[in-house]
Amino acid sequence: MSSIEERLGALGLTLPEPASPVANYIPFTVSGRMLLISGQVPRREGKIWPVGQLGAGVSLEDGQAGAANCFLQILAHARNAAGGDLSRITRVLRLTGYVNSAPGFGDQPAVINGASDLAVAVFGEAGRHARSAVGVAALPGGAAVEVEAILELA
Amino acid sequence: MSSIEERLGALGLTLPEPASPVANYIPFTVSGRMLLISGQVPRREGKIWPVGQLGAGVSLEDGQAGAANCFLQILAHARNAAGGDLSRITRVLRLTGYVNSAPGFGDQPAVINGASDLAVAVFGEAGRHARSAVGVAALPGGAAVEVEAILELA
Amino acid sequence: MSSIEERLGALGLTLPEPASPVANYIPFTVSGRMLLISGQVPRREGKIWPVGQLGAGVSLEDGQAGAANCFLQILAHARNAAGGDLSRITRVLRLTGYVNSAPGFGDQPAVINGASDLAVAVFGEAGRHARSAVGVAALPGGAAVEVEAILELA
Repeated sequence: MSSIEERLGALGLTLPEPASPVANYIPFTVSGRMLLISGQVPRREGKIWPVGQLGAGVSLEDGQAGAANCFLQILAHARNAAGGDLSRITRVLRLTGYVNSAPGFGDQPAVINGASDLAVAVFGEAGRHARSAVGVAALPGGAAVEVEAILELA
Repeated sequence: MSSIEERLGALGLTLPEPASPVANYIPFTVSGRMLLISGQVPRREGKIWPVGQLGAGVSLEDGQAGAANCFLQILAHARNAAGGDLSRITRVLRLTGYVNSAPGFGDQPAVINGASDLAVAVFGEAGRHARSAVGVAALPGGAAVEVEAILELA
Repeated sequence: MSSIEERLGALGLTLPEPASPVANYIPFTVSGRMLLISGQVPRREGKIWPVGQLGAGVSLEDGQAGAANCFLQILAHARNAAGGDLSRITRVLRLTGYVNSAPGFGDQPAVINGASDLAVAVFGEAGRHARSAVGVAALPGGAAVEVEAILELA
């Protein structure tokens, strides 16, 4: 077991079973050392959660938990991309976080910290990444947040 | 003629004349094997179409047709980037689909399937890509959809 | 001093002191020759400016000035990434511009031209880039615009 999965275990986290592709897109592609992971929406017990908008019903805490879950799903796909060995992920290069936002909500960075903090908790210094956080009008299935990633493979 | 253009022909599609740059941005850049294509809005007879929001007037079918047209324009630029030879495009790495969405619309993935399905119809297995689909408040010229791409060059 | 900083000087511009990281994300990451810069919101005298939505209070001119300031901050981070020598930036590969947009606002490209024009003023032909411009519902701190970049390092 890689030290990354040990760190996940110490955080009380296990990687979810990666969701199967539901269309003509797939969870990830690789080109050279660049690993592109599709946008993930947060799930709990198999359903999209949280649903709704930040600034209109979804709390900052739930948004952060959702963003963390998105990153956990990113990790599950990354493990597959790396042939089961997360230690082959050498860097989190960029996260883009889309926050389902009511007009006037401006705390997208705090929401996406749910994903960013988990990246650093898991990868340490190699988990520190470039990032954009924006507020969008709507997301798939009404999800409160969606996170996509660019990672670097050994 | 490459087999990719034969497949386009079999689908009854021809590549549009790539739109000229209208500003200090250009349709694509290349770095190593990475080909970055600018966001495309859908056109019909030279005008942006469809215009409006999904969930507020624009049908799912029209949204999908628009997304497919965006991908067709992406292909037209890719052909230029590849010196006229689409067989030099070895992989569709990622599509990002922005859907002009009324509040509460959550079917962005179905809309962007218009682009994803065409990618696979044209490139086969190499057309299967990472993807993000998000709902935005507004798009250039009121377009219902915008799609950008990262492709891999031989 | 690199010729790029001479050009900035001729435009009456100086690079801002790059903002310190405020979370577990950082201003940039590098992989191979690819330099990914985090999304920047515009600032004036240390505060986010302009604040609000295009099409609902923020003028096109202010939006463009904000986009230009985002690019100036991108440059400041790029200089750090390049060890202080902006001549090591060989290409602006892509800008993604998020415009805080009221429903119905469709001039996102004109707003983001504020960044694109500055890229070309500073880098010349190497500043011409792929680009996406979209309209979003909300941005961090209420910013009117956010711009992220992919650059190429020598």
